[in-house]
Amino acid sequence: MRIEDLTSKEFELRVRGGAVVILPWGATEAHGVHLPLGTDSIQPQSVADALAERIGGLVAPLVPYAYHSSTKNMPGTIDVSFDTVRALAQDILEALVRNGSHKILVIAGHASSTHMTSIKLACHEITVKHDVRIMFLSDYDLLPELADREGLDPHDGHAGVMETSRVMAVRPELVAEHRPPGRYVSHGYEVLRNPETCFPLGVGGDPADANGELGSRANQFVVDRLVDMISTRWGI
Amino acid sequence: MRIEDLTSKEFELRVRGGAVVILPWGATEAHGVHLPLGTDSIQPQSVADALAERIGGLVAPLVPYAYHSSTKNMPGTIDVSFDTVRALAQDILEALVRNGSHKILVIAGHASSTHMTSIKLACHEITVKHDVRIMFLSDYDLLPELADREGLDPHDGHAGVMETSRVMAVRPELVAEHRPPGRYVSHGYEVLRNPETCFPLGVGGDPADANGELGSRANQFVVDRLVDMISTRWGI
Amino acid sequence: MRIEDLTSKEFELRVRGGAVVILPWGATEAHGVHLPLGTDSIQPQSVADALAERIGGLVAPLVPYAYHSSTKNMPGTIDVSFDTVRALAQDILEALVRNGSHKILVIAGHASSTHMTSIKLACHEITVKHDVRIMFLSDYDLLPELADREGLDPHDGHAGVMETSRVMAVRPELVAEHRPPGRYVSHGYEVLRNPETCFPLGVGGDPADANGELGSRANQFVVDRLVDMISTRWGI
Amino acid sequence: MRIEDLTSKEFELRVRGGAVVILPWGATEAHGVHLPLGTDSIQPQSVADALAERIGGLVAPLVPYAYHSSTKNMPGTIDVSFDTVRALAQDILEALVRNGSHKILVIAGHASSTHMTSIKLACHEITVKHDVRIMFLSDYDLLPELADREGLDPHDGHAGVMETSRVMAVRPELVAEHRPPGRYVSHGYEVLRNPETCFPLGVGGDPADANGELGSRANQFVVDRLVDMISTRWGI
Amino acid sequence: MRIEDLTSKEFELRVRGGAVVILPWGATEAHGVHLPLGTDSIQPQSVADALAERIGGLVAPLVPYAYHSSTKNMPGTIDVSFDTVRALAQDILEALVRNGSHKILVIAGHASSTHMTSIKLACHEITVKHDVRIMFLSDYDLLPELADREGLDPHDGHAGVMETSRVMAVRPELVAEHRPPGRYVSHGYEVLRNPETCFPLGVGGDPADANGELGSRANQFVVDRLVDMISTRWGI
Amino acid sequence: MRIEDLTSKEFELRVRGGAVVILPWGATEAHGVHLPLGTDSIQPQSVADALAERIGGLVAPLVPYAYHSSTKNMPGTIDVSFDTVRALAQDILEALVRNGSHKILVIAGHASSTHMTSIKLACHEITVKHDVRIMFLSDYDLLPELADREGLDPHDGHAGVMETSRVMAVRPELVAEHRPPGRYVSHGYEVLRNPETCFPLGVGGDPADANGELGSRANQFVVDRLVDMISTRWGI
Repeated sequence: MRIEDLTSKEFELRVRGGAVVILPWGATEAHGVHLPLGTDSIQPQSVADALAERIGGLVAPLVPYAYHSSTKNMPGTIDVSFDTVRALAQDILEALVRNGSHKILVIAGHASSTHMTSIKLACHEITVKHDVRIMFLSDYDLLPELADREGLDPHDGHAGVMETSRVMAVRPELVAEHRPPGRYVSHGYEVLRNPETCFPLGVGGDPADANGELGSRANQFVVDRLVDMISTRWGI
Repeated sequence: MRIEDLTSKEFELRVRGGAVVILPWGATEAHGVHLPLGTDSIQPQSVADALAERIGGLVAPLVPYAYHSSTKNMPGTIDVSFDTVRALAQDILEALVRNGSHKILVIAGHASSTHMTSIKLACHEITVKHDVRIMFLSDYDLLPELADREGLDPHDGHAGVMETSRVMAVRPELVAEHRPPGRYVSHGYEVLRNPETCFPLGVGGDPADANGELGSRANQFVVDRLVDMISTRWGI
Repeated sequence: MRIEDLTSKEFELRVRGGAVVILPWGATEAHGVHLPLGTDSIQPQSVADALAERIGGLVAPLVPYAYHSSTKNMPGTIDVSFDTVRALAQDILEALVRNGSHKILVIAGHASSTHMTSIKLACHEITVKHDVRIMFLSDYDLLPELADREGLDPHDGHAGVMETSRVMAVRPELVAEHRPPGRYVSHGYEVLRNPETCFPLGVGGDPADANGELGSRANQFVVDRLVDMISTRWGI
Repeated sequence: MRIEDLTSKEFELRVRGGAVVILPWGATEAHGVHLPLGTDSIQPQSVADALAERIGGLVAPLVPYAYHSSTKNMPGTIDVSFDTVRALAQDILEALVRNGSHKILVIAGHASSTHMTSIKLACHEITVKHDVRIMFLSDYDLLPELADREGLDPHDGHAGVMETSRVMAVRPELVAEHRPPGRYVSHGYEVLRNPETCFPLGVGGDPADANGELGSRANQFVVDRLVDMISTRWGI
Repeated sequence: MRIEDLTSKEFELRVRGGAVVILPWGATEAHGVHLPLGTDSIQPQSVADALAERIGGLVAPLVPYAYHSSTKNMPGTIDVSFDTVRALAQDILEALVRNGSHKILVIAGHASSTHMTSIKLACHEITVKHDVRIMFLSDYDLLPELADREGLDPHDGHAGVMETSRVMAVRPELVAEHRPPGRYVSHGYEVLRNPETCFPLGVGGDPADANGELGSRANQFVVDRLVDMISTRWGI
Repeated sequence: MRIEDLTSKEFELRVRGGAVVILPWGATEAHGVHLPLGTDSIQPQSVADALAERIGGLVAPLVPYAYHSSTKNMPGTIDVSFDTVRALAQDILEALVRNGSHKILVIAGHASSTHMTSIKLACHEITVKHDVRIMFLSDYDLLPELADREGLDPHDGHAGVMETSRVMAVRPELVAEHRPPGRYVSHGYEVLRNPETCFPLGVGGDPADANGELGSRANQFVVDRLVDMISTRWGI
């Protein structure tokens, strides 16, 4: 159930009934030559929709912009600053709390640590200020367990086999056939002006063998885990 | 053509080819008992998509959150602060310019003057800083001419007959049958803590007679005007 | 009664007695070739002084600087930023509230919508935070009714016949004889780096026939309206 | 010559001719039982006007609000924050520089060190950024020499004999006959929540013998010194 | 060589000679019942001093305050905000660059990801703005390799056997004999108001067997690695 | 007793017992050709340590960075901005208060009025917000009395005979033999882009006759005065 499709009254009734609100946070970011710029929006949106159906939750409108560093200078990455992400997250959470939401899950499609930190700071600010429970993660926090079970390359990463498969499971028409492997150039601990040089093709790992079946298992795995977590911790 | 569906390369080629980028700015806001919370997102999204098709433009991912005052305290309004709207607009525009966009149209579904001011400040900041052309308006800046021609009540407003009709033209399943008229309570020039008291039902005007045909004419009118404006001013 | 002329004790007694505080907000801005840079300060100062006399109010020291866009690049416009106007308004209002003022009228001589928004945001912040009543307007919000009654050109505007007449009524020695008409160049909805190009002479309308009698009627009209509004809403 | 009385064109000609711009910074602050709240505005305004006449300078509109600490909680003090003073000073100076001013004198009537620091930071920011000369002081930086020569009590201070005399020289009707001496209560180096307790009557020294003749000598002394300083350093 | 012990001239000569500047960033933070609050300052200071000796570098004065979350509410943690850490790092780096430093290593004793992000944002800001090379890491980024080689518990963490041993190697008199093991209470992905509940004893792992020999090996390992990294990347 | 050497528990006990916390604020700043860059850190650190011993206080870790203007462009001055100093002071004080400290002394080694103002604003913010007592001064606020008694040149200043002697008393090995006198070039009240031109050698006064005995008397004098002040005002 997406919040944007409800009337004011319908929303109010569901929130009063204790519905969990799920805020999917996407991105518009270069993902190699084979994946669409909305890759990091497609994934949390599909997870949020499926999860909401399972737990009777409400999906807030997806935020399609994120903080980026390593792909910032690649065509099609539309990044916003650390402070803007933080302020936006804080304002949306504040508004949800004012609307009576007491249980909020924020799920991020883009999982870079700096981006995650900015949303986490906002979540923390809200939990200090209000009596509310907030869970925050990227689905990529959960997937290593599945990747291990599926025998994936541990270096699989951005636009790699897992991510490509997940988009293929949801929007196969947006994934190109030609999927060259990525290359990683280490710069050690230097803080670079142009961090995309670490990552010249915008791909981590080898997406050649990506397939929708793997993607579906991954998407299902994430939703199952989220259902478990919400059930265990919040009794829903 | 939505940017989120393109790869990095596809986006780059279109921007280099001079494509206008259209940024639709929506909102999540109470719209009476009959319209969905996403009303102000549905409208600029549909206009942006239709316009992009007409002029070969690119549609950036819609921002679904806005600044609100008069409906801020109504259930389902998820507002963000003036400064956050401004910062977000500035960051997105900055990123578009860095990506090579030289002609950008920002179209806002929510047209309150404070919200418009915040985006306008951001647009101005960017035009001062970069050699780029930005057009910014709400489709409600254009519609009075049509409303006049159609003989609508001049007090028709928020969630009124025009807005209801436009949503009916695009997402008829989201519009309720029961559509009581709004009521306006003047507080003169007092700046109110609870401005929703001016506007207790969250409706301006009488949406009873709304219909999809009127909505389609309105949507078409807005797109035609935008095509004219872009053609006249930017030669596209 | 101007606050600056009172001692601390005298001020305290009047505020305790419930006196309305009137804060006139002026500007230093190019006004064609015939009006002084202080035009937007002269008007609210004279209205505030006359109103205070009528209602036993207190006039706070006029702020002589505002936010400007369309005249920003013209000689003599001394503009301050949006954020500074907002911060200054908020601080002054906060200090007035701490001093015990419960009813405050802010009247702006410069009426551009961006400038008005910045002060309005400050007023709103204060009414949310404190139990206080604030009225905020430009006298140009009231004057269209009179302009209509007097049969003025509906395009009369900045440094036009109304504004020129009002300054002539108060400071005739500052108004030049030679008063060429303005010219407006539409740029549609483009956000311009140099918005003064819309407005190359810095005049809106034709001030040739301005006269002090009209100005006096206008000034009187504004004061009468303000007395009515304060009486109706605040019982003073 | 006050800027607010000039047209855009007249201002432009004088600035191009190299006229020094003088910005008087006042305050609205409790000054014992005998002096008006505008005391710190009256003094720099009168100095600025006299100085402008002597050197052919231009007087910018006086800012009537300042940062206050020791009198902040006394009735009638309308203080603004440190950051607001700084931002306002910076914006005004920036606008003057954009207008072509190359030599600017800022003269503060309120001389508390924190207030002075906030304006000084703004001045410094501008001199680092632009090729412009700025002189900044309070007339109370100059007066100790005269006070010494006149044999005044070295503890004479806020609302004391010097300040009272200076207001008497300009606006004698605003100065009360009854002028009890102040009292100072030391709190050492403690940073107090209520610093007015150091200073319970809002007076430093004994204003009983204040007189307009002393005030006139002081005002004259300040203007003479400023003329010397500007002549010596800027050749005007 | 510590910068604070050099004169202005001596510093200038060394910087001109191309000396790497090492900025150790410490913390004041609860570290169980057995370690001093300065634990995270002692470690980077000792590493920085030893490294400077090896490479002829200069050690900038240690910053003894950091951002903390999990131990924030424990006695003795003196935390500063995310924004303050970022601003301070940015200002210090800016000043070093203005002084002519072209190669700067920032080494953090406190390694929480949020704290690291704040310093990293500052480093990135500087590398974007200036032509300078900055390396930034915590020594705990390097130590997992050694911990693995030494056969340490992979859950060894804050105030655990490695950290305790390292302090014992440098300041043995500050480490208590009684060193009870820590306990970790998972709260999954909830963002907690009181994150110390995850971590009730303020210890991660079991410090009972800590010893100065292990600590010396660890400190030596970190310095050797840093020497290698600087040599490989910067040719020093 | 330095806080960094205590465990969490030991710190907690002492704070509960009412121990005064002393925060020494140093600087890294050019001090002529004869004094080390850490001169302004050495002094408050030695005073804080001695004072803590006398009154059973706790010394917080020294902050080694300050705001500088007149020496900002000299080699080795590592300055941080006004706002950063203020934020850092506010955060540290806030954390101390949260830890239960009720009596805090902040002692600054660098005494420029702008730097002092930034810390003072932070102290004031905290005393307004919390029920806590804060004393703030530079030891150079106390020393004029001794300088007078010792017959020192009243123009003795930065890196002069008093400051040099004080460093000689504590770290004699860091003070050079060759100590040429300073020179002061007045620029009146101009706010300079390069204020170091007032002060070309970075020395105020003549440090030739500096000696450790004078320094010891000065350091002792400061500690005695602080003991008196704390005893008189806080009964400790």
